[in-house]
Amino acid sequence: MKLTILFGGASFEHEISIVSAITIKEKLQKHFDLSFVFCDTDHSFYLIEAEKMQAKTFSSGEYKKLPQLGLGRGRFECKRMFKKIEVDGVVLNLVHGADGEDGTIASLLDFFDINYIGPRTDASVFSYDKRYTKWLCEAKGIRYVKYDVLYADEQKDVRFDFPLIVKPARLGSSIGVSVVKESEELDYALDVAFEFDDVVVVEPFIAGVKEYNLAGYLADGELHYSIVEEPQKQEFLDFEKKYMDFSRSEAVSKAAIDAALTNELKENFKNIYLDMFEGALIRCDFFVIDNEVYLNEINPIPGSMANYLFDDFPRAIEQLASSLPHRKRAKINYEYIHNISAAKGK
Amino acid sequence: MKLTILFGGASFEHEISIVSAITIKEKLQKHFDLSFVFCDTDHSFYLIEAEKMQAKTFSSGEYKKLPQLGLGRGRFECKRMFKKIEVDGVVLNLVHGADGEDGTIASLLDFFDINYIGPRTDASVFSYDKRYTKWLCEAKGIRYVKYDVLYADEQKDVRFDFPLIVKPARLGSSIGVSVVKESEELDYALDVAFEFDDVVVVEPFIAGVKEYNLAGYLADGELHYSIVEEPQKQEFLDFEKKYMDFSRSEAVSKAAIDAALTNELKENFKNIYLDMFEGALIRCDFFVIDNEVYLNEINPIPGSMANYLFDDFPRAIEQLASSLPHRKRAKINYEYIHNISAAKGK
Repeated sequence: MKLTILFGGASFEHEISIVSAITIKEKLQKHFDLSFVFCDTDHSFYLIEAEKMQAKTFSSGEYKKLPQLGLGRGRFECKRMFKKIEVDGVVLNLVHGADGEDGTIASLLDFFDINYIGPRTDASVFSYDKRYTKWLCEAKGIRYVKYDVLYADEQKDVRFDFPLIVKPARLGSSIGVSVVKESEELDYALDVAFEFDDVVVVEPFIAGVKEYNLAGYLADGELHYSIVEEPQKQEFLDFEKKYMDFSRSEAVSKAAIDAALTNELKENFKNIYLDMFEGALIRCDFFVIDNEVYLNEINPIPGSMANYLFDDFPRAIEQLASSLPHRKRAKINYEYIHNISAAKGK
Repeated sequence: MKLTILFGGASFEHEISIVSAITIKEKLQKHFDLSFVFCDTDHSFYLIEAEKMQAKTFSSGEYKKLPQLGLGRGRFECKRMFKKIEVDGVVLNLVHGADGEDGTIASLLDFFDINYIGPRTDASVFSYDKRYTKWLCEAKGIRYVKYDVLYADEQKDVRFDFPLIVKPARLGSSIGVSVVKESEELDYALDVAFEFDDVVVVEPFIAGVKEYNLAGYLADGELHYSIVEEPQKQEFLDFEKKYMDFSRSEAVSKAAIDAALTNELKENFKNIYLDMFEGALIRCDFFVIDNEVYLNEINPIPGSMANYLFDDFPRAIEQLASSLPHRKRAKINYEYIHNISAAKGK
């Protein structure tokens, strides 16, 4: 089966997308006919040979010597004088953060009728912006940590007691995130967060909370779940720690939790996933506070696709690639224009 | 000032977008250096000469003989052997319905750094899908009519008394919408709605409700409002009636309402618009029920841009075109890749 790994993008997560793609190559190259399409920070696409899939190809700018691609109907392509390159496999959208997770790439691929694994435009909008994830939870009856929203151009007091956690609204990978223990530290934490986004989300920071990650996808009409992982915790994962996380490929052990909690996590996952995330393999990060499950965040394109949580990751990707949603297309017959022209007598 | 009217799209509203564009041409051609870019139902773009801006150019397929355009950095363009066409004005997104209002075109234009008037991707998602508009209202404390959601593949009873109004979740222009007076009519109404979408929204139908429309946009740091209109009511506007609406260009009279209600409508508009619809001229359709203002729907690309509600429509477009939002772009220096490569000793 042909599979095109699309990675890079003009986002703060550009580099971790490269790391993710290199990891995915290792996990999938025996099972798929892989192509690699790199989106650079100028939004140009390049076809990267498998043996060039190393960090230095990108950091050195060497990728610019490789074939540049355009978007064509159902594929990436390059038309040159004497040869034509066509990259027409199902795309695995591995562009983390802006472009990849905010709905831009999803829309682009939809517009050009390119089949892809990844969140659709609306699913992207709800998972990328931390405010909208809260709205989604509210609408679906899923517990979430209470929050305040601060805008760069306004003066507003935070209504929670310390400690707090301060996050740019639209960035993943812990970039710009701070835990603030006392009021003296707040201004600096806000300055850091506003470096990355004009909108900042502030939540009470709950020390010692239990955290569980669960990934899954819909294929052949049913949800397929990964194991539940209890991630290694520091106070919270900073960017460098998370960065290394994007290259994870070793299987992890199941969290030591009972069947009831496992089921409750799955029920919450299902509630989030259905009617929104079809076509994507997502990872939901949950908190358990006073025996209640809370959604912390949705990763609609998790680092290296959370491969380490699945027993048979290549099979998961294959199943998903064969169960992708398709958009309803309108058929246009110009009936109304004909009617109205007739009515107007022209 | 150059302005590119982008219209068409692969949606049920394809034809009304053509009507809208022809109307806009009449309203703006004296004030702007206009270009017309047509997106056909195959998602190919064509440059349409001003004198060819007639319904029959499209219904006859004649547009296919005109120059085909591609997307380039900051513009539409056509590279041919001996001449190069560049269409680089600010784009006015006039693609109604799917593509134009669901975030696809917004993402496409953002990706190619083309400046445009119209809703951004997230604003599109929240206004296009009637479910998400309700979620937006809930989050922002705006009143909305209670609702139920039905999916094509499920059996579920509607929990409201008749009469009801049945609407496809993701279509504008009253397509597929029915008022259902008694239970015998419900199945047929649902069949009609499910023709257009797999998701249907059902609301109690409130007869004789007062309806008011208000349009506006943010420019130079402040909101500019249109007059408030009380639309001519039939039971509800059906598609043919609305279709004619998209060609409206005659100024209308102000609704006969007092200053208090006008202000309340403006406050509701402001609450909806800010932090989401920047860059767009939108029209909000409100209900007044028992003296309370309810949001009925958001039109993020209203028919012919609701030109008839503005005293000086060309000036509105000019102001808006000069106040468009720009995305924060990440700067990538490959610092992490360099650090990690150094740590690994390679």
